[in-house]
Amino acid sequence: MSALPETLVQQLAQHFGKRFSTAEAIRTHHGHDESHFPDALPDGVVWPHSTAEVVDIVNLCRAHRVPLIPFGVGSSLEGHVLATHGGISLDMSEMNQVLAIHAEDMDAVVQPGLTRKALNAALHGSGLFFPIDPGADASLGGMTATRASGTNAVRYGTMRENVLALEVVLADGRVIRTGGRARKSSAGYDLTRLFVGSEGTLGVITEVTVRLHPLPEAVSAATCSFPDVASAVQTVIQTIQLGVPVARIELLDALTVHSVNRFSKTSLREAPMLVFEFHGSPASVEEQAQTVQELARDNGGEDFEWATRPEDRTRLWQARHDVYFAGLNLQPGCRAVTTDVCVPISRLAEAIAGTQQDIADSGLTAPVVGHVGDGNFHVLILTDPDNPDQIARAEALGRRIVERALALDGTCTGEHGIGLGKRDFLVAEHGEGVAVMVSLKAALDPLNLMNPGKIVPTTDC
Amino acid sequence: MSALPETLVQQLAQHFGKRFSTAEAIRTHHGHDESHFPDALPDGVVWPHSTAEVVDIVNLCRAHRVPLIPFGVGSSLEGHVLATHGGISLDMSEMNQVLAIHAEDMDAVVQPGLTRKALNAALHGSGLFFPIDPGADASLGGMTATRASGTNAVRYGTMRENVLALEVVLADGRVIRTGGRARKSSAGYDLTRLFVGSEGTLGVITEVTVRLHPLPEAVSAATCSFPDVASAVQTVIQTIQLGVPVARIELLDALTVHSVNRFSKTSLREAPMLVFEFHGSPASVEEQAQTVQELARDNGGEDFEWATRPEDRTRLWQARHDVYFAGLNLQPGCRAVTTDVCVPISRLAEAIAGTQQDIADSGLTAPVVGHVGDGNFHVLILTDPDNPDQIARAEALGRRIVERALALDGTCTGEHGIGLGKRDFLVAEHGEGVAVMVSLKAALDPLNLMNPGKIVPTTDC
Repeated sequence: MSALPETLVQQLAQHFGKRFSTAEAIRTHHGHDESHFPDALPDGVVWPHSTAEVVDIVNLCRAHRVPLIPFGVGSSLEGHVLATHGGISLDMSEMNQVLAIHAEDMDAVVQPGLTRKALNAALHGSGLFFPIDPGADASLGGMTATRASGTNAVRYGTMRENVLALEVVLADGRVIRTGGRARKSSAGYDLTRLFVGSEGTLGVITEVTVRLHPLPEAVSAATCSFPDVASAVQTVIQTIQLGVPVARIELLDALTVHSVNRFSKTSLREAPMLVFEFHGSPASVEEQAQTVQELARDNGGEDFEWATRPEDRTRLWQARHDVYFAGLNLQPGCRAVTTDVCVPISRLAEAIAGTQQDIADSGLTAPVVGHVGDGNFHVLILTDPDNPDQIARAEALGRRIVERALALDGTCTGEHGIGLGKRDFLVAEHGEGVAVMVSLKAALDPLNLMNPGKIVPTTDC
Repeated sequence: MSALPETLVQQLAQHFGKRFSTAEAIRTHHGHDESHFPDALPDGVVWPHSTAEVVDIVNLCRAHRVPLIPFGVGSSLEGHVLATHGGISLDMSEMNQVLAIHAEDMDAVVQPGLTRKALNAALHGSGLFFPIDPGADASLGGMTATRASGTNAVRYGTMRENVLALEVVLADGRVIRTGGRARKSSAGYDLTRLFVGSEGTLGVITEVTVRLHPLPEAVSAATCSFPDVASAVQTVIQTIQLGVPVARIELLDALTVHSVNRFSKTSLREAPMLVFEFHGSPASVEEQAQTVQELARDNGGEDFEWATRPEDRTRLWQARHDVYFAGLNLQPGCRAVTTDVCVPISRLAEAIAGTQQDIADSGLTAPVVGHVGDGNFHVLILTDPDNPDQIARAEALGRRIVERALALDGTCTGEHGIGLGKRDFLVAEHGEGVAVMVSLKAALDPLNLMNPGKIVPTTDC
């Protein structure tokens, strides 16, 4: 972990002018994400404008054996963008153009710095939308790199299903194009899926082709309160098992609803709640809503409250997306140790019940919220950053939650990724498979310069 | 290309008894697939019964530097199972058990030798089905290895979307488990998707966990004839662009319909035809059918003929699945040079029109059939195996069809895979990406013993 070689600083300054910075405030911003990990500052930040410039930066860094960390908007939750080995933070935010919208093929080609909301704004009037919606207005490059998903994944899939093609700059400066715009292909190894979820450790994503979806003809959304989390989860399980093509089905526990009311000025009943959204033709939406209402009622759900106007729905989902900040707001000055697990749907009730018992036992404050249609839920464990004992207890609680999820045939992360925080769990989950990941990393990045220290255990560079 | 070392023969005979054979008839069967490539016999065939036995075989072969070629049912269409470098054919057909059906999670764990029809038979009464349906009753291991799809992919996805987890024996004898039963995961590199479509070149698949889907409450199927292929294709494009969740939408050109009538004793009108199937609730199926009928009528489609009884639908789809054999039957004794391309849906009309002009110019007989909802179509170019000039013309025609698809932003294979037949096109399509594939192959199979010569260009072993 050393500062940059003087020659490299000169070369970057000469090439990028004001688009290269070693100012501390800039480096601090880029050495920080939404996780609870301590900041780890890069030695410099560069803002490329083109794939050719990314190639230049990769080649310069390689010549000097300096690590490179791609940076989107800094909303990662497992320390992905922290420069734990120093090096250059590659801020992609100025490569944020929509390169093409192929409305007739329902795809778009974008630069990696474009955010998901900016893409949807660009799609306005096309009759299409891009459904993947992590809480933050993340960049599409970052979402690709972490295999992100969100509330719509139960219907529309995750970044795994919605990235059709990529352009990637490899560690040796080669530029490859993976996948293509055809909806399916059996042409060779699936390099697209190898880079989706690779967290910047295999190369720098410089272009993303994503699937778009037709805006549904009709949309309806509703909330429904339940006497306890188990009844809500049972409703979710039955909905999925019946094959109802629900677009969103989200769980908020009572504490989360309370935090949302405080933060978003809503007046939701402070009980475990499901938030549903149905997409389709008017008749299909009506039919789905009918089926789910019956299931909810059988499980003790209170009457549905419908958000019929688009602006009410927008407010409802914005409140849902803000649960992270709403949760933090419960204890001013706190930070959160988050965890994000996903289990087969049949194990969901057990996973959440056990998690809630663990939270109670821990004495900590920890809202639970989840994309439960996929079996995925998050726990936001609030901690005082100046209280090491509390942080240790939060981390222990997070471990117990993940260990239970693994024991229930689940995964240690449904959508946040491995980053720094879950490398040990990756080994617990995939065993010898991690050795294979190490081999792939070594094959594509033999000098270990691409976001070193993330995902796979590596020696320092 | 040499026969097996005597020690290896002794070891395999001792270990496997009658489950090891070097008989010529057996080797001939295993050195042959449904492609037009000349037979290439393995030097021996082994039928393992367990993952541990696969490990033993892999270790024995590696010790003697002998190649290994996994074999399912031999229905590959690009020479995947041909032992072009000699070696052992690993016949997985006796590893054909259903290991678990998790109805509540809608997944099943199976051995790779199980065929898709056998899986669906095992699911009888569960309310679930496995939708992926290449023409042949292929093995699930083989379907995983070629990233297969079929008529249902437009609604349910391909093997890429429907394989959740794998067990794989690597070239060095290690056994890894990839993925998991959770519906989504961001835990590290997507090894599952790396092995899906790897055609036996990265390891031997010994267990597959697949997604299942709820049997639709209502199903309806119909055929509709069109004045020309362009009108049929236009109907498909509009259906997809409207977001109608059609389950199947298949094109047969007039020659294909003629071949089906001859082979399957049907009496379909011998004009370009679309075959539709709709899945959903009764109301949703009715609504989908209504929408598509209107689109078809606007494009000159003749009235829909409905296959309302389940046995009529089964007969209709069996006839569709038999088009390969129906086509061959047009010229007794012929073989087929097949090609399989996939283009973005907006380019489909142009791709098929150009292809039909090429066929007319070639003077060859070549039915066209396709999973057009995905932009995927096949051409079955009939050739007399004793007429080298005709074979050369067929190959030239196949090349033109693929070159056009690539020029239209498509892929050289939608679902058949690369095998031997499309290695040059893989380079044309993916360029430098193929060098990355070579690196991955070298990282996982440094001795090049796993199905050598397929997908990636390799030196002889």
